[in-house]
Order: sequence, then structure tokens, then C-alpha cells
Amino acid sequence: MQLIDGKKISQDLKNEIAEVVAQRKADGKKIPHLAVILVGEDGGSQTYVNSKVKSCEQVGFKSTKITYPDTVSEDELLAKISEVNNDADIDGLLVQLPLPSHISEEKVIESIDPQKDVDGFHPISMGKLVAGMPTFLPATPAGIVELLDRYDIETEGKHCVVLGRSHIVGTPMTLLMSRKAKRGNATVTMCHSRTKNLAEITRQADIIIAALGIPEFLKADMVKEGVVVIDVGTTRVKSDKTKSGWKLKGDVLFDEVSQKASFITPVPGGVGPMTIASLLKNTLSAVEMNEN
Amino acid sequence: MQLIDGKKISQDLKNEIAEVVAQRKADGKKIPHLAVILVGEDGGSQTYVNSKVKSCEQVGFKSTKITYPDTVSEDELLAKISEVNNDADIDGLLVQLPLPSHISEEKVIESIDPQKDVDGFHPISMGKLVAGMPTFLPATPAGIVELLDRYDIETEGKHCVVLGRSHIVGTPMTLLMSRKAKRGNATVTMCHSRTKNLAEITRQADIIIAALGIPEFLKADMVKEGVVVIDVGTTRVKSDKTKSGWKLKGDVLFDEVSQKASFITPVPGGVGPMTIASLLKNTLSAVEMNEN
Repeated sequence: MQLIDGKKISQDLKNEIAEVVAQRKADGKKIPHLAVILVGEDGGSQTYVNSKVKSCEQVGFKSTKITYPDTVSEDELLAKISEVNNDADIDGLLVQLPLPSHISEEKVIESIDPQKDVDGFHPISMGKLVAGMPTFLPATPAGIVELLDRYDIETEGKHCVVLGRSHIVGTPMTLLMSRKAKRGNATVTMCHSRTKNLAEITRQADIIIAALGIPEFLKADMVKEGVVVIDVGTTRVKSDKTKSGWKLKGDVLFDEVSQKASFITPVPGGVGPMTIASLLKNTLSAVEMNEN
Repeated sequence: MQLIDGKKISQDLKNEIAEVVAQRKADGKKIPHLAVILVGEDGGSQTYVNSKVKSCEQVGFKSTKITYPDTVSEDELLAKISEVNNDADIDGLLVQLPLPSHISEEKVIESIDPQKDVDGFHPISMGKLVAGMPTFLPATPAGIVELLDRYDIETEGKHCVVLGRSHIVGTPMTLLMSRKAKRGNATVTMCHSRTKNLAEITRQADIIIAALGIPEFLKADMVKEGVVVIDVGTTRVKSDKTKSGWKLKGDVLFDEVSQKASFITPVPGGVGPMTIASLLKNTLSAVEMNEN
């Protein structure tokens, strides 16, 4: 079994991006600039946003963090998005989700200029993905494809089972794995809460991408020998062994499944770190697209 | 075995739409108006466009047919699309594909106002489908879901195998069958030219949707007893038994597979007629959306 080290690959990617940025600086070209909007005080969201901003610093990007209390009105938020859309210095914009219930996430996402949609959540980005057109790929699925690529894991003609149908992970993952591309061309089965005989299906899989959000759902008797397992789950469960009082659990019962897997991602340190690296990559692409 | 009669269901749908239009007339409301642009002299395209226009007449819609020689420039075509986009009397616009090679289909599709995109091919329409937002569904996949619905064929928890990954049929079909909806909630496997052990997968299917474009590809030994078979294939093959010199063949070897199927669509007279009915339904929706 080989562990897929997302932390290391993510760092490699960041180093590569930092080199490109350094070269851009030397050439007098524009420095990529990411803006992140955070609404409210949710601890998880704050952590994510801070680590996005920190990652920008690490690779030499400019970043702008815009925060609002969770009482901000939808109109005020939309006005700020419009302002950022029109700010020529800002190349990428993301609004950290979830948003308070009085603000429509759909409206917010649709108001982001598709050319700055580095999260890849705008319907037009998703639609281009369906149509096979160049576009910003959603960060987590793009990070998974990057992992498969860096570990040279063959996908063509393989049976890939995706657990979960969210529009942020499961659905775009299905699109990416099945499309005509080097790390695509897989036969993909999308499973979800209504799937019957799930274990029968997962036991046929060459590659399993687990994005259900149910801790330790995938067990050893549900997979075949030699399977590649990508664990997207990150559920906080109570723990008396950590200072914070909780620890992250994936969708895969790691100790068991890793005995049978040929490759497997740990949680934490697998898919998670890749998401931010993909976001940086998208932001760099946004700048480069504007130059062409 | 029960034959799924697309011709009849399509006629039922048209009758229902005609009733709504008659009521709209009586109420003094706007009459739906579809514009169709045809470029070039391709026989198949001419037939499709003419039958779309004829169907509009049958249900009481207004229609406008705009034709260009295949020498028309991309700019001239885009200017016409912009004119139609701005014409408040026209509710739906479609450009018949394929287009001559000097015109970018992507550019043309993206130039159509998403609110008039009754073919559902605009990236924003596709993206809304991924995100589960209300939108125009592409006509052929929507017609298939309608057939399943009218024949009360259960899809929840069923294993649906989609053959083909085109962005017009296979991919949106996968999205529709897997989404949270009454005629969705299926476990979906998307297969294509790179799939290995295809027969092993199709033999597990409760529902097969064949959209490969390979005549009589699916044979009896590839399906299980009781399967539901939807045949999207329409390949013209030479025939000395018809006046035209050709006949339409589906992707399914009908005589064999129909012996094992619980439900099956014929070709012609199955999925084909539903495509136009879906287009009319989308055009009616376009008018109704504008009123809300």
C-alpha cells in the first residue's frame, strides 16, 4: 500500500506556483491577487479563509480578505461582489460558504464574474465542464485529479465509483473522471443515499472516491484487493485525545481499508491540502487567461 | 414486454400544450413564439427544422424560421442572434446544429440569451442542471425522463447504465437520472468507448439508455431479463427496402433485446418524437417564466 501524501503534493504545487510568481515579478508582470469574502463567525470558515490567505502569502500572491458580520444584508454583499468584479487588480474572488440563511447562496455565486470564479462554482463554470470547454475546475475535484496524476495512477478504462452526488464534489468528480482526458476516460458509477446494494458496486471498483460525509462509512469488506481509495470526507467528531476536543474523520475506515488498497489518501493530509493548492492554481490561470 | 410509444406520448404532450395555448389566447395572454435558425442545406437539418416549425403550428405557437446559406459569416450569424435576443416577442431561440466548420458552435451557443435557450445547450443551462437549479433541460434527455414518467417506470435506487458521454445526451442524462427527483435518484453508471467489460456492466442494469450512435450495438446477451431499454440511436443505414434508400437504426438490436425487456422504445417512434415535444414544453416555460 502506498500512502497518497496530499500535504507533500500540495507543497510541491505551491513551490511550483511560487516559482512562476517569482519569475512574473522579475519580468515585471502582474502579481496574482485573490479576494476572499467571509461572512459571520463560523470557526471552520474562519480557519479555511485564514489558511487561504496564508497560502497566498506563501506563493507570493496578493490577497484581500473582506469580512462581514452575519447580519450583513444580501444587497450589501452583492454590491461588494460587484465592486470586486470591477476591480481590475483582483484576478480571483471567492465567497466562503455556507452563508447565513437570509442570503441566497445561488444569487451570490451567480453574481461573481465568471472570469474571476476561481472556486469554479458559478453555473457557467460547471456548464463548461459538462461541455468539455476550458474553465475553472472546482477546487476539490481538481485537486483529486492532480493527486492521481502525480502518483501516475491510470484511470482510462478503470471503473471509478463516486460516493456522493453533491454539486461541489460528487457530481463534478463524475464529470472529470468520465471526460476525454489523460486522467479521465474512466467508467464512472455515481452512488448516493438512495443506492441499493452499495457494497456490491464498491467491490467492483478500481478507484473509489468517497464524498458522503459519513465518518468511516467505507469498510474493508466493501472493497476489492488493490483498490485506489480517495477519501474526501472531513467530519469533526468528538475526541478526548486532542486539545481542540475534536478530530477529523474521513469517510473511510482507514486502518481496515488501507490493508487492501494499492493507494489511499489519509485524513487529514490527503485531499484537504489539495483544495487550497487548486484554488491558487485557478487564480494563477485567471491572470494568465487575461494576458492571452 | 411493453413498447414505449414515443409517438403517442409526444402527441399527448402536444395536445396538452395546445390546450394551454388555446386558454392563453382566450385570456388574451402572449402566444409563445419560437425562432429557429438554419444554416446550410443539410438534408437532415432541414427535415428537423421543418418538423419543429410544423409542430409549433400544431400547438398554436408562433414560429420564425431564419435560413442562411452555409457561406454566412460568423459575425452575421451572431448579429442575427443578438437581434433575436433583443426581440421581446420571441421567447425561445435555437440554432440547428451542426454548423459549417468556419463558425464556432461554442461561440454561437454562448451568444444565445440563456433565458431563450430552449435547447438547453448554453453552458449556464447545463451548469444549473449540475447545481440542481431550475433551468431549461436539454430536449432529448428531458423527453426520456418524460417517457419514464408517463409509463410510471420506477427509477429510485435502480441501476441505470448510460451508454455514451456526449454533452447533448449521455452526460445530461447521467445528471438527470442521478439527481434528487421523482424520476431520478438512480445509481448511474456512465459508459463510453473506453469502457472495459461493457457487457458485464450492462447485464447489471435495471435501465439502459443507449446513446452511442452505433447501430444495433446492444444485443440480448448484454442485458438481463426485465430490463428497461431506451434507445437514443438514430443512424441512417442504406436500405433497398425504402423509397429514400435508407432507414433509421437504433443502438439496440430490437428484435433480440425486446424478448428480454420489460419496456423498450422502438426506433423510429420512441425517443425521437419526444425531443420536439420537449422543445415546445421549454418554449412554453420560457413564456411562463417571464410572467412570474
